[in-house]
Amino acid sequence: MKDLCSLTYGIVGLGIMGGSIAKAIRQNILSRHDATGRILACNRSAASLSQALSEGVIDEGYSSENVDEMLCECDILFICLYPHATLDFMRQHRESFKSGSIMTDISGVKGIFPPVLADILRQDVDFIIGHPMAGGEKEGYINSSAAYFVNHNYILIPQNYNKQENLELMRCLIREMGFTRITETTCDIHDYKIGFTSQLCHVIASALVESAKDEQITAFGGGSFEDLTRIAMINAPLWTELFISNKDKLIEHIENFEHKMDEFKQAIASENAEALRSLLEDTREKRIKMGSIRTVVKK
Amino acid sequence: MKDLCSLTYGIVGLGIMGGSIAKAIRQNILSRHDATGRILACNRSAASLSQALSEGVIDEGYSSENVDEMLCECDILFICLYPHATLDFMRQHRESFKSGSIMTDISGVKGIFPPVLADILRQDVDFIIGHPMAGGEKEGYINSSAAYFVNHNYILIPQNYNKQENLELMRCLIREMGFTRITETTCDIHDYKIGFTSQLCHVIASALVESAKDEQITAFGGGSFEDLTRIAMINAPLWTELFISNKDKLIEHIENFEHKMDEFKQAIASENAEALRSLLEDTREKRIKMGSIRTVVKK
Repeated sequence: MKDLCSLTYGIVGLGIMGGSIAKAIRQNILSRHDATGRILACNRSAASLSQALSEGVIDEGYSSENVDEMLCECDILFICLYPHATLDFMRQHRESFKSGSIMTDISGVKGIFPPVLADILRQDVDFIIGHPMAGGEKEGYINSSAAYFVNHNYILIPQNYNKQENLELMRCLIREMGFTRITETTCDIHDYKIGFTSQLCHVIASALVESAKDEQITAFGGGSFEDLTRIAMINAPLWTELFISNKDKLIEHIENFEHKMDEFKQAIASENAEALRSLLEDTREKRIKMGSIRTVVKK
Repeated sequence: MKDLCSLTYGIVGLGIMGGSIAKAIRQNILSRHDATGRILACNRSAASLSQALSEGVIDEGYSSENVDEMLCECDILFICLYPHATLDFMRQHRESFKSGSIMTDISGVKGIFPPVLADILRQDVDFIIGHPMAGGEKEGYINSSAAYFVNHNYILIPQNYNKQENLELMRCLIREMGFTRITETTCDIHDYKIGFTSQLCHVIASALVESAKDEQITAFGGGSFEDLTRIAMINAPLWTELFISNKDKLIEHIENFEHKMDEFKQAIASENAEALRSLLEDTREKRIKMGSIRTVVKK
């Protein structure tokens, strides 16, 4: 297997995710005394590149104009763009990727890939579909951090065309970046599960904020409202794209959730204490069984 | 004003809230070198009393059988029971409270008080209605902590019959216990706002857990689902009582929330990206304006 310390890494899009990936690679892999690897990054705004250069996080910065000069150098390329922009980038720069390299994405929706893979892939570039599950309400390189990935999941979606040695290299890299758990699945299952754990949660948090009649409501908060709505400080263009790209699965989750809300509402409205208590006891048991990524021991 | 360091405090119900109140008073008030005050506690189970005695948190423990001997000693009495049990306790022990004392509660619903106050109050005992807004999924004395109140709200509901000096003493005690903010309001407004920030959130979290088809779902979690459902590890008998006691207001909040969920659902189903983006931008702005109790500077 290739040595992670001697590779050239490329980051397309140096926002919070791209920046955190660069920092994690710099701190956890390229900080070793014998490391010869480099990190190259391309970004629309020059400010993030300058900051990352001055912090020693990246070795070279590129713009959209000269990104092809960067791409032909990268052994492992992270495309950290919105879902459809990721596809566009792969299409536009198809001829520039380094032969024998690995390319990977961070897109929060995967159903967009299978229909177009045959068109955009090259035989000699291994595209590994992935999703680092570290979101949050913050944005931009300025908020990126290597510590961001600890206690988080990374989802990998191996394809038949992926080379085993490249998949193994990615798993190794992901663990070195600090992720607590790697889950492997298909594009379809990814979108169904993420539609529930992430997208549905963002819709609920947003609807809850919208249903507040009063912006001073936190004067009456004990923490619950704040915990439920922190993720409502949402990046509107990105989540609009995610929601609509995963429409069918997300609508199914919303409707299942609405049915359960109704079950609670009926029990409360009819003052059926026994039904309500038994529902809440079931909820408590289920939730405890679900545990938390935070309790998973690092592999 | 009376000196907080020299009072006798009583705690009825030494669970997570009663225990945390006792610990906060012990550590923040009675630890002063010249303090002469005491903490007496009554609890159904003897185990919590023994532990609190051995830890030096309380000075004396009482059972339901001899609690009247405790009540006649207490200058400030915290009744830390479920809402209706609080009313029952006040009725049953009406003749035992110390003349000139202050009595207060921690009930999460306040609409139960106004209709019965005239029956249960004594002219010479000042009942101050309050609600320390520090919940959580943990229970029992074993999980209590003095640190529990930092960054939390305390709601006070002054009544016409309350003596100003007693209200001022309570405010002082609340700040000394470590609460970050005191909000003063009426029973009706309390129940309306808490129905939103606390009860609605617990119904949503519970419905979200119930709508999960898969207990291994956290393998696909990025933190959102876990943040939204931590409070679903709910104390079923307590919350059944809270939900049903505040039925009308809670149902109104549930229905407002359901309308907003529908608005999001329609925008997603019709792939109306513009409507969705503008809704999410509004959500983000509103949520940012709402801020957080955690950003409030301690008075």
